[in-house]
Amino acid sequence: MKPFRVSVHIVPRKGLLDPQGKAVADALHTLGFASVAEVHVGRHLVIETQAGDAKAAEASVREMCGRLLANPVTEDFEIAGVVPA
Amino acid sequence: MKPFRVSVHIVPRKGLLDPQGKAVADALHTLGFASVAEVHVGRHLVIETQAGDAKAAEASVREMCGRLLANPVTEDFEIAGVVPA
Repeated sequence: MKPFRVSVHIVPRKGLLDPQGKAVADALHTLGFASVAEVHVGRHLVIETQAGDAKAAEASVREMCGRLLANPVTEDFEIAGVVPA
Repeated sequence: MKPFRVSVHIVPRKGLLDPQGKAVADALHTLGFASVAEVHVGRHLVIETQAGDAKAAEASVREMCGRLLANPVTEDFEIAGVVPA
């Protein structure tokens, strides 16, 4: 078992309302950043876990996302990277 | 001016308490993921903005992070990617 650091992005599903992103975009406009078209706000998780290899680490984090980390109704997740810790 | 999609990671500064990460790690242990050592929870933002080139898009998002998106006392940010939208 070796330590791995797995990064995950959890984002609101495409097509669903993203009120937090809308609020950030409005605030940026107010601050003068007129060229901002759209903002999406999601979560960035870094999970340090032990696994036999990178593939096993990724599979285990996928299971964590399905069971706890991401809301399957409103969110999508993607594994952004798996690196030895 | 061309459209760019800039990804940003905003994470709790190293060494500061990350109670949300601690709570997620504890919940994962309870679910049986015993090999999880540590979890860090941050924000993942995707900003769609117009700019002359990728370098200008990145500079503009850095300024947004400094002025609004990241808390300079407790958070660090990094530009994770700049791609044409």
